[in-house]
This record gives sequence, structure tokens and C-alpha cells, in this order.
Amino acid sequence: MPARVLRSTRPGGTRVGVGPVEIGGPAFVVAAGPCAVESAAQTEGTAEVVAAAGAHLLRGGVFKPRTSPYAFQGLGEPGLSILGRSGARHGLPVVAEVLETSQLASMIDHVDVLQVGARNMQNFALLRALGKVRRPVLLKRGFAATVDEWLLAAEYLLDGGNTQVILCERGIRTFETTTRNTLDLASVALVKQRSHLPVLVDPSHATGLRELVIPMALAAAAAGADGLLVEVHTSPDEALCDGRQALTPELFVELMQRLPAVLQAVGRHLHSRVSTAPAVRAVSP
Amino acid sequence: MPARVLRSTRPGGTRVGVGPVEIGGPAFVVAAGPCAVESAAQTEGTAEVVAAAGAHLLRGGVFKPRTSPYAFQGLGEPGLSILGRSGARHGLPVVAEVLETSQLASMIDHVDVLQVGARNMQNFALLRALGKVRRPVLLKRGFAATVDEWLLAAEYLLDGGNTQVILCERGIRTFETTTRNTLDLASVALVKQRSHLPVLVDPSHATGLRELVIPMALAAAAAGADGLLVEVHTSPDEALCDGRQALTPELFVELMQRLPAVLQAVGRHLHSRVSTAPAVRAVSP
Amino acid sequence: MPARVLRSTRPGGTRVGVGPVEIGGPAFVVAAGPCAVESAAQTEGTAEVVAAAGAHLLRGGVFKPRTSPYAFQGLGEPGLSILGRSGARHGLPVVAEVLETSQLASMIDHVDVLQVGARNMQNFALLRALGKVRRPVLLKRGFAATVDEWLLAAEYLLDGGNTQVILCERGIRTFETTTRNTLDLASVALVKQRSHLPVLVDPSHATGLRELVIPMALAAAAAGADGLLVEVHTSPDEALCDGRQALTPELFVELMQRLPAVLQAVGRHLHSRVSTAPAVRAVSP
Amino acid sequence: MPARVLRSTRPGGTRVGVGPVEIGGPAFVVAAGPCAVESAAQTEGTAEVVAAAGAHLLRGGVFKPRTSPYAFQGLGEPGLSILGRSGARHGLPVVAEVLETSQLASMIDHVDVLQVGARNMQNFALLRALGKVRRPVLLKRGFAATVDEWLLAAEYLLDGGNTQVILCERGIRTFETTTRNTLDLASVALVKQRSHLPVLVDPSHATGLRELVIPMALAAAAAGADGLLVEVHTSPDEALCDGRQALTPELFVELMQRLPAVLQAVGRHLHSRVSTAPAVRAVSP
Repeated sequence: MPARVLRSTRPGGTRVGVGPVEIGGPAFVVAAGPCAVESAAQTEGTAEVVAAAGAHLLRGGVFKPRTSPYAFQGLGEPGLSILGRSGARHGLPVVAEVLETSQLASMIDHVDVLQVGARNMQNFALLRALGKVRRPVLLKRGFAATVDEWLLAAEYLLDGGNTQVILCERGIRTFETTTRNTLDLASVALVKQRSHLPVLVDPSHATGLRELVIPMALAAAAAGADGLLVEVHTSPDEALCDGRQALTPELFVELMQRLPAVLQAVGRHLHSRVSTAPAVRAVSP
Repeated sequence: MPARVLRSTRPGGTRVGVGPVEIGGPAFVVAAGPCAVESAAQTEGTAEVVAAAGAHLLRGGVFKPRTSPYAFQGLGEPGLSILGRSGARHGLPVVAEVLETSQLASMIDHVDVLQVGARNMQNFALLRALGKVRRPVLLKRGFAATVDEWLLAAEYLLDGGNTQVILCERGIRTFETTTRNTLDLASVALVKQRSHLPVLVDPSHATGLRELVIPMALAAAAAGADGLLVEVHTSPDEALCDGRQALTPELFVELMQRLPAVLQAVGRHLHSRVSTAPAVRAVSP
Repeated sequence: MPARVLRSTRPGGTRVGVGPVEIGGPAFVVAAGPCAVESAAQTEGTAEVVAAAGAHLLRGGVFKPRTSPYAFQGLGEPGLSILGRSGARHGLPVVAEVLETSQLASMIDHVDVLQVGARNMQNFALLRALGKVRRPVLLKRGFAATVDEWLLAAEYLLDGGNTQVILCERGIRTFETTTRNTLDLASVALVKQRSHLPVLVDPSHATGLRELVIPMALAAAAAGADGLLVEVHTSPDEALCDGRQALTPELFVELMQRLPAVLQAVGRHLHSRVSTAPAVRAVSP
Repeated sequence: MPARVLRSTRPGGTRVGVGPVEIGGPAFVVAAGPCAVESAAQTEGTAEVVAAAGAHLLRGGVFKPRTSPYAFQGLGEPGLSILGRSGARHGLPVVAEVLETSQLASMIDHVDVLQVGARNMQNFALLRALGKVRRPVLLKRGFAATVDEWLLAAEYLLDGGNTQVILCERGIRTFETTTRNTLDLASVALVKQRSHLPVLVDPSHATGLRELVIPMALAAAAAGADGLLVEVHTSPDEALCDGRQALTPELFVELMQRLPAVLQAVGRHLHSRVSTAPAVRAVSP
């Protein structure tokens, strides 16, 4: 049975600090960026857009877990420094996925939050290794994992000594094929009640459809999520990975402008600005 | 392929009128009441509570579809007049489920909206019969129906000549067992984009857990739903059916007080009051 | 809880007699025919083929439940007499699906086994009506029904007084899309242990792919099923319904020639011939 | 798209040799043993039973992937030599699961077939490492993996240079909770048609219920599987892991006695005896 993840052990909730960003407090955070780091220019272009629009963290895939061995596998180590430099340039801490223990050494220098992907949620060797790291871990829910299994995967991290754990719901696999996955927001509300850990929502992977990302992001905020993980691409049609679900810069700006009202309605607010980049001027609707 | 349900055929959207209530316009509606009509006293007690708190329709099960032949099957026809009388007393139109064509004649006198339950979403004989009725139909999504199948079930109604169709998402069946079903809010947003029909959300059946109903109701409002179908019971622990998911009167009042802010955040508002009962005084949060 | 369906109430198992055919005894039965009765010629052609190959019952859809209102809906009542005549001509009892109570009167004259389709497994009004009929009922498992729900649906029939109930597994809906459904043979073995009712398997709907029908039919025999429901079409490419899953006459003959060895391996045998049509000569492999 | 796994590239099928055992040819193989290696005595006791009954490989978990960090995690390295010694003593090659690349060095000395568990099917780092090993790999299907994803995971191994790949279906996760998973035998038949790789079936994990293991094992043989992976425990009630699904020695003997007839019915036979232990005398049924 889970123990360390239960809310009863930390009734006030866990707040995970990532540089100037606090995840799990009253402020709502947004991690945004490309599915994959494709080049320095694309990463920097996207970082500029999301920083200007008010994102709090920069996300990007460097080691990409791909269903086919022949699909684009990510830039690997060179991508790490591209991502790290773009984050630093805009004052945004960086989130990237780790696929195996051997990558940790090189990631530690460039990455602020180590993401465990859905396919690795029960990669217990990796969880054991991350339990010993002193770096926040973002643990995605496996696409066929129950809430209990998800919390027990987090328990591996806490049991290993790493208390800086952030959960992330990204949709589960069901019979429905119109959307890529089925976003399970009830589990987000449930986990917030049962556990003290912060929970983010990834509406991009959950739906797979750009036009559903904003409604699901707003719904996630209303349901009590602590933040979002969103894919943004400056030219989605040319993306090497998952372009169909990436927000355009314009849609990302729209999202950031619409979030505060919903957050206020549920007694929360958008996290204060962390980027040193100039803010986007609010557009009249 | 669907045709009459597509938004392109009615870009402005369908508005279904039910007495003083309009469903599908800018105003958000709430249908509330017990899972099952158990007695005149229980129904009237619940109607009084939901009317006073600002519900717009009274829902209640009279013919109950039950998995086991030995479970409480509903009061049947006597329940219809109980429900109809309570609705009339408080000025609330009434929603109840129809299980078969032969029940239509007696329901027409007491019921304003005919509900097709999830198990009957593809009961095509029933859909054909309801296509010929001039009474609004609330079509619940089957718990294993894809969005396309749901829209095609609605197409049966429209093709039959009944344009007063309201959809209702109530959760789909997945491997997750912590919640009763998995509420699929992305499908709500998707259906609002693809179809001109109004869509309600039933967070009670979707989650099966009282403590998740309010967060999911707020999320549904943020996702673009046109209203809610919510179970309320004055003594949930003594309910003959699904008490675990029923809101107490206190929680229902809380829900009605929290909805307006979220609706306003997404450019909508709660439907104006239709009940003649005195309003509940707003409690300071 | 189920009661009348439990094996403990009839440890020796139920045998359902349909004319000269006994279902649920040591002999294994095969019901075969077209997905839909399209014409007298097509039905008679298929009946001739399946009778000659040794089928024991003739199946065919007359009232077709279709996802879209614009798809072929079956021939309706004229189809009943076409099916009934072809069955009679070859000495094969007839299986056809009933969609609603009002069809029962006209079906009784032409149909020997009344099939309840997967979409109607929890159409309790229909189950109640069939509980009062003295005619065998073939109850298909709903595509999202648990084993318990399936047995409780059968309990409605037994509780109504009809003990001539045959179950039929036809695949459940899962995330897997390569096959139309996922055939759940473990549930067949489980139901045979828990209940006294006979269980058939429909490998055609379960897989949706002609090339998987024979392997799954043999697997069903090995798993302990009491028989098969198989779709056969003389010109699958021209079928109005589900041609992709229909066996050609040649493949059906192959199936009938391969079944006996597997049945013998598990201590059973193919039901004795009931058709008056001349047998197909065994082809050397 | 997959390429190297497709049957068109090796129409005759792949045969994987493991010492005296050949997997993927006309002979059907049985790998049996405990879920977890708990002690030398228990492992040796089980090895003796399965060898005497005619098993061809000894399986046993040494590094156990467990949902909870507080569940028994396996004996680790000491378990490897226990398992290896028992295999050697009875002439049975050994199958055990590898959880991470770093375990490979110590496993190579004791283990003949490296198993990738369902949770690791898309652990691409592990797949890449195993692609470079010259040792047969048993790749279990992820419990939420489609057939295409499963084949693409195998493609990683083949693309890496390891052609000694054996697939294993072990049930997928569905809404059905009576059985632990839903055994998908249609996928076994499908994969045998599409790919040249051998496919085993694990009826123990698939069903989670001892009483369903023999019927599903026979069904797997009839469906065209190339062999089985079966859990056996000398005292299932005292097992540290999954005792509910373990066959007793008596049931395993029964399985081995019933398989040959079903195999013969589909034109195959049980692999010849490889153990040097004395055979179990056939018991009259």
C-alpha cells in the first residue's frame, strides 16, 4: 500500500521548487515547448514565444521514446545543451525526459526537472535511480496505469529519498479513437485529494488534437490541477513529432490569456512571471 | 456518415426549449434530483432543495434499468405522477428515462424531457420511436460508445424528425476502477465543435464518488458543456440506488454557488432562475 | 447477485433443445449463415453451402441494428420468411436477432432461436419480454459487459421463466484496433465453470477478419465452448454487411473438416448431422 | 513501419534455438516454473516437478518488477545462480526477466533466454541494449500495447542485430475485472500470419486464475501458438508472488498430458523431451 504519497502524511501538500518556480502552491504553472528539440533555431524560436507569453518552464524532448525504431529519435546529448541554453536565455527552468539511468549524468547539467514518460512509469530501475537524485522528477501516468499504480510508482521515488515529485496526467488508453487518449480529469481531482503531491495535466498528448488543447487546459485548471505541460511549435505542420497536437504561438498566447479568469474562479492564480523576456501585450478578445 | 447532426448544417447551434428553460444557448442549465424516485416525500424533499438552490430541471428515475433483476427497479407509473407533481409544484420541468416504446404514452403526461440511458444508446427501435415524438430527448452516451457512434445515434432521432435533441456525456468504461467510469470531457469539447447539438455532463454517474462531483462539474463548465445532470439525495446513505455518488443538499448548494464564477470565466452564465421557490441565500465562502 | 444462472443450481448443465439439435451437451454445434438476409437467392445459396458442410443451425439477420440510420437495415419481415423457408428446406433450425418486443409475434412463426444482440444485452424491457416466451434465447455478451453483468442479464431471462438460454461471447471492446473486437475466450471457460448455461462463440464479429475465424473457432472448441456462430457468404466482397469477416464457402468447409479433431482432443465431438442435404465430401488436405 | 519482423522477409518463419530446444518450428514448447525464485529448495522442487512432467525450459523471476516498492522484489543476483543450477541439474535451459541493462552482465552466465516484461516492452533503452546481445530474447506484449506496437518493439531488437526474438502474449488490460487481464488469442493468430517470429502464450498472467490456465493453454495451442509460459508452484498458497494463478504440480502434469492431443489436431506435436529427469508416468484420465 502507498504510504509516503498519502495526503495524511503531509496535509498541507508538497510544494516543489524549481529555481524561481514553485509547483503545488496556490499558483498555477505552465511548462511549454516543443515535443522534440529539432534544432537550435526551432528551440530558441519556441522558447522566445512561450517565455514572452508567460510560460514558467521550458519543456522539450531530447531523447525521444518512439514506437518505431525508424522514427526520429531526438537529437540526444547535443539537444540537451540547445535546450538548456534556450531555457537560460529566457530565465526558464527546463524539463526533459530521461529514458535510462545512464543519461542522468549528462542531463543533470542542463535539465532542472527530470521527466519520466508514460511508457516508463513502471520502469522500476529508473525510478530507483531517480529516488536517489536531488532533482525534481515529473512522473507521467502510464497510459494504462490505474491511479493506485501511479501513486505506487511515485512511492518508489519517495521511498528512495526524493521528495521533489510532481505527477502528470496525460490521458489513458481506451476504445475511443477520435482522440489520441482519454484525458482523465477525475483522476486529477482524486489524486489531489488522496496525495500531497502536485499534479500537472498534459492536454496535448491526452487529446492529440490542437483544437481540444485550450478547452482541456481550462477544464484542468477548474478541476484543481496545479499546472500544465503543453506542446507549442512555431510551425506545427513541419514538426518532426506530433505536430497535430502542438499549439501555434497564437493559440498559446490565447491560452495564457484565458487561464487567469478560470483560475480566479477556483481561488487560484497564474504563477508570477519568471521569464526575463518582455511580456506579450494582451490582445483584446 | 452523420449529416443532420453536423455543425455545418446549423452553425449557430441548436437551442432546445423546455418550458421556461433553454438548453444550448449562452446560459448553462442544471438538472438535479434523485437517482431514483423512491417516495413522494423523498422526491418532494429533494425537489425543494434543488429548486431553492437554483436548479432548472428536476431529474428522477422512475423506470430504473438495473444490472440485476433483484435490485430495486423503480416505482414505475406511480413514480411518474410523484415526479411530475414535484416538478410542477416548484416550477421545474422534469427529466426521466424511458426504457421502451410502450412507456411513452404514460410518460408524455408527466415528463418534459425523455432520457435515453447509456445502455439504450443503440436501442434503435427506441430511437426510431423517439424520432417521431415532439418532445425533447436527452441522449446519454453509451459507456462503450465512440463519439462517432454517439453522434450517429443522435442522427437516428434527427432523421426521424425530432430536432429537439440534447446529448449527455456520462463517462466511459475503461480499465480504471477507482472511479465508476472515466469522464471524457475532451469528447464534450469535440462534440461541441463537430455538432450543433447541446451537450450536458453527468458527473455523478461518471465518477461514482460524491467528492469528485463538484470538481468535475466545474471542469465540465470550463470545457464548454451546456449544463449538468446531477444526482442529489437528502439522505444519501439511505438511497435505494447509487447513494455513494449523490450530492448532499449542502454540497449541491455549494456547487450552485461556485458555478457562476467559472462560467463567467469562459464567457457564459448560469441560466436565469425558473423555480418559483425562494432562493437560497448565498453563503460567504 | 445471480442465482438461477449458477452452476450450483444445475450441476449437470443445461441442454437446450432446438428441433433435432441439442446445445450444451457433449456435442458441439455450429450455427452458420449470412450476416444479413439480403435476398432469397443469397440466403438459399448460403443455406445450401452450410447445410452441405454440416452446419446445425442457419443464422441470418433480418432486423439489423446498424450504427448509422443510413446503412442497410435488413429486409425486415419479408426476410423472416426467406430465412425460415431456407432453414426448412435444408432441415436447419433458424437463429435470428430480435430488436424489440413488437417483433416477437411475427418472428415466432419463422425463427427457432431468438437472438439478443450485444447492443441489447441490457435492454431489460426486451429481456423481460423474452423471459415469458417459450422459445430458446441466444444472449450475446455486450461489447462492454463484464462477465457478471452478462450472467445477470441471463438471470433476467431465467427469472422470467425461460430456462432455454444460450450465451454467446462475441468479443469485447478494447484499445486494440487491428481486430474489430477482442475475443475473450477466458470468459468462456470461466462462464462454463460458474454457470450451467451453454456458451457459443462468434469468431466472426469478435475478430472482424476472415483469416482469423478458423484459428479462433478451433481455439474456442479447445477452450470448452459448446458451439459456434459463424458468418458465411457466397460472395463476401459483395455482402451488404460485414463482408470482411465472412467465411467463403471453401473456408467454411475447411472449418467443418478441422473441428472434429480438436473436439476429440478435448473429449467432445461435432453434433450429428441434422441437415437433409447431401454431405460435402471431405477434401484431402 | 515494421520491416524486419514481417513474414514476407522470412516466409518460412524464424526458429530460435535454445540449447536442445527449438522454438518456432513444428514442435510446441513449454516453459514452466515459479513466478519468483524464492529459495533454492522451492526452485529445485519446482524444477524437479516440471522437468519430470516434460517441460522444456525452466522459468523463474529473480529481479521482480513490483507495483509497490514494499512488495517482495525478488532475490536478485543470488537468485540467478539458484535458478541456473536448477536448470542445469535437470537439463532445462533457463528463462528470466531482465529489468535493466546493468543486469545483463551477471545474467549472461546463468540465463539462456532474456525476458523483457510487459511493463518494459517500450523501454527502448533496454531494447537497444538487447539488440546487441547474442542471446535469445522473449518479448512480452505490453498490457496496453497494440499488435503494431508490439511488432515495432520487436523491430528494435531485430534492427539492433539480434534475430533470436520470441514474442509472448500475456493478456491485455480491459474493463473486465473477473480475470486479471484479457487473453488476446486473436492477436496470436494475427501475429503468426504477419510476422515470422515465434509466439508463446502466458495463460497464468493473462487470467490470474489457476482454474483457467489449462483451458487457455489448450486454446492457445489450437490458435497456433508455438508454446507456453506457465507458472507452477509446489505450494501455491504460500507463494510470495501471484500464487492464485500458479498451477499445482498435479495440474501441470494434467496440462502436459492433455496438450499432445490438441497439438496433433492442429498438425503439430509437443517438443521432444530435453530433461534428463525421469518422465512422469501417464495417468489414466
